[in-house]
Amino acid sequence: MKKIICLLTLLLTISVTAQSDAENIKKIYNSALLNGKSYEWLDHLSNQIGGRLSGSLNAERAVLYTKEELENLGLDKVWLQPVMVPKWVRGTPEFAFIETSPGETTSVNICALGGSMPTPLEGIKANLIEVKGIDELKAMDRASVEGKIVFFNRPMDPTLINTFQAYGGCVDQRYSGAMEAGKLGAVGVIVRSMNLRLDDLPHTGSMSYGDLPLSQRIPSAAISTNDAELLSGMLALDKNIKFYFKQNCRQLNDVQSYNVIGEITGSEFPREIITVGGHLDSWDLGDGSHDDGAGCVQSMDVLRLFKENGIKPKRTLRVVLFMNEENGLRGATKYAAVAKERGENHIFALESDSGGFTPRGFSFDCSDSNFQQILSWKPLFKPYLLHYFERGGSGADVGPLKGSNNVLAGLRPDSQRYFDHHHAANDTFDAVNKRELELGTAAMTSLVYLIDKYGINNINTDQKLKD
Amino acid sequence: MKKIICLLTLLLTISVTAQSDAENIKKIYNSALLNGKSYEWLDHLSNQIGGRLSGSLNAERAVLYTKEELENLGLDKVWLQPVMVPKWVRGTPEFAFIETSPGETTSVNICALGGSMPTPLEGIKANLIEVKGIDELKAMDRASVEGKIVFFNRPMDPTLINTFQAYGGCVDQRYSGAMEAGKLGAVGVIVRSMNLRLDDLPHTGSMSYGDLPLSQRIPSAAISTNDAELLSGMLALDKNIKFYFKQNCRQLNDVQSYNVIGEITGSEFPREIITVGGHLDSWDLGDGSHDDGAGCVQSMDVLRLFKENGIKPKRTLRVVLFMNEENGLRGATKYAAVAKERGENHIFALESDSGGFTPRGFSFDCSDSNFQQILSWKPLFKPYLLHYFERGGSGADVGPLKGSNNVLAGLRPDSQRYFDHHHAANDTFDAVNKRELELGTAAMTSLVYLIDKYGINNINTDQKLKD
Repeated sequence: MKKIICLLTLLLTISVTAQSDAENIKKIYNSALLNGKSYEWLDHLSNQIGGRLSGSLNAERAVLYTKEELENLGLDKVWLQPVMVPKWVRGTPEFAFIETSPGETTSVNICALGGSMPTPLEGIKANLIEVKGIDELKAMDRASVEGKIVFFNRPMDPTLINTFQAYGGCVDQRYSGAMEAGKLGAVGVIVRSMNLRLDDLPHTGSMSYGDLPLSQRIPSAAISTNDAELLSGMLALDKNIKFYFKQNCRQLNDVQSYNVIGEITGSEFPREIITVGGHLDSWDLGDGSHDDGAGCVQSMDVLRLFKENGIKPKRTLRVVLFMNEENGLRGATKYAAVAKERGENHIFALESDSGGFTPRGFSFDCSDSNFQQILSWKPLFKPYLLHYFERGGSGADVGPLKGSNNVLAGLRPDSQRYFDHHHAANDTFDAVNKRELELGTAAMTSLVYLIDKYGINNINTDQKLKD
Repeated sequence: MKKIICLLTLLLTISVTAQSDAENIKKIYNSALLNGKSYEWLDHLSNQIGGRLSGSLNAERAVLYTKEELENLGLDKVWLQPVMVPKWVRGTPEFAFIETSPGETTSVNICALGGSMPTPLEGIKANLIEVKGIDELKAMDRASVEGKIVFFNRPMDPTLINTFQAYGGCVDQRYSGAMEAGKLGAVGVIVRSMNLRLDDLPHTGSMSYGDLPLSQRIPSAAISTNDAELLSGMLALDKNIKFYFKQNCRQLNDVQSYNVIGEITGSEFPREIITVGGHLDSWDLGDGSHDDGAGCVQSMDVLRLFKENGIKPKRTLRVVLFMNEENGLRGATKYAAVAKERGENHIFALESDSGGFTPRGFSFDCSDSNFQQILSWKPLFKPYLLHYFERGGSGADVGPLKGSNNVLAGLRPDSQRYFDHHHAANDTFDAVNKRELELGTAAMTSLVYLIDKYGINNINTDQKLKD
């Protein structure tokens, strides 16, 4: 009889707990959709500040703006964490054309890749060699590459449902194309934009020369998908056509910048830290609304929703707006280094850096037992149409926090439209839907609420210290 | 031993079948994403033809265009099914303002609701009474309504995750508002647009006077959400402000139109009919890309994908482009009536009429046993991120095909952006993403493939006839 009563009590407790979780999550969703602040913040970041490339004036304005907004929330602490960041500037607008015969030219849309060398002042004009990727280039002898512009034209694979996979299958061309072509004596690199759509916008993004000597570093630029198709078609007709491009971007000295951090200190286990964040820097062509203004304002709103709903976290909640994800990851590296120095216990870190689209779920980087614990919460998310709870990557900025026992996670919004805007001039506020953004905030807050309430398996340092 | 062999054979059969289903669905997705025709068709329907209100020249052009395109696919049969449709015309652009004092006016954006009476030539100017819905209006006495313009201002509920539910909770104001207000002697009706976003676009849609005598029929128009907020705010300050509006829409005599139908005749069970469709008519303000050009071109592409992939359906596949869903449902009613007359056995009918956004799954109107059969296929859709398989509505056009044993279904795309565009001037081609549209086509084709291959539980007329 005693056993039965125990069992009934246990069942009742579980059911009441599940009910109260469902109710609290409903409250979180309601306030995100009724009184969310993320869209208003994003409007300011995008339309009053704009593109926030590391080291730019706009990046510093964004630091000051978000710090002030976090201060207005009445968090327990708000601070700036200094970090030196690279400063690359685009210079005057790039210019390019295809020359079919002397004087007969067709303008095309290009943009310098982030970190690229400039062309000489007079630009570069040369014949082209089209390849579908780095392997194809590496199989060539120096003679066929030397003095030419290498045109990397492998498109993103449209048959992949997850567009990030399609991106992953192409981005090496952009990142390492110039390094590999430089080794073979090429004079420049043109890369098909990482965009599944055919349009006229070039998409920038980071590239690296590795430790290539300065003499072998050649300028590289992205070309719009429409113009990549055009160029490829013209090359098929006549491989002797020439390509001209001119860009005067430059890498300057590193400058001081900051991660912006806000905290609600935990009431029971203050040494267990839950971090939620996005990156405050963006590329310079658009205003960085999806990448990653959205993730920043959603993360800020997570803490605000805790306060608005009177949920006092047991564990310490931090919002971190990381600086310099796009071309250096310096902010994330610094944040993790300081955390390690201080012996901080980051039990959970969630990043939103996949656009402000309708959330579909989360990906997790964690142990089996932690994943099982998280899966047990999945039914709570069903009313909100979140269905994707899978092992996989988390986010570039939370990656350096990886420990032996903690949980890293990434918000997974619908990915179909993301690369239409990614790193291009149309990554702008009007491409973000208010409800979709707010649903992302609510999903993040709900997951953080559960992690805060239940902790994660096998990790409860403060509790152990108490015991 | 014999039993074990039998069991192994069975298991092997099941696993081979499941594997080949998975492979065929992969083939379907690949060809939809690589060689889909839906986007190109939609471009033509939207940009070369445009809005296709029933009875308009554009609607007839759309009939001819889609018939020709279906003929080009080499289907077994393509035909037009005649149907008489209502013809309502908007006339010259509507005009409205708020008058705070004589001569002091603020223009607002309105559009006549479909089916509305015109105002007198000189327009209507009157005081307003704001209500949050029909119940609130009905509770009022005639004296407080008579001679006034009734302003229905209940917003869509933003806390509902499924925006169609939020629409369902408001649309009675638009559909029956003028009828109810007319009974109480109001002179006009202004309805807040069915839009979750605050913007300047009025959203039209159907309304009805029921059997109200002509003398009580008053003009009704939708006002943009921004202007609804403005009007409500101004009324709160001064309930004596006046509202003026003018519209010269008219209901003309019914005209001849058509459902457009194409068919691949089934190779084994030709008398079992599987129908897939959308509605070819649209409202007149935008070009009807999401509502429901998308559903039409997706449905057309379902049959094309069968042919392209060399899948010969066992059952008869029909694409039906229904005429007049928006303001009469005459096409759907006619199609079902003819089907009944001919004793046709419609085992399955799938409609896409919720926009061309990323598909999330399907809703089904069917028996338990049929639903269980469908749920057993759900794992096949997981790689394509389809997760929503629920009982519920299907689609307005397939509704009249409801029988005692058949299965009706509706494609369920992400609904967050739908009402930003629905029935408004921004329901245009640029708001449709090619991949999202194509993923919907692939999802529909895959479901039709499974229904065709396995039939539906308890219904196999042809097979029974064969036996």
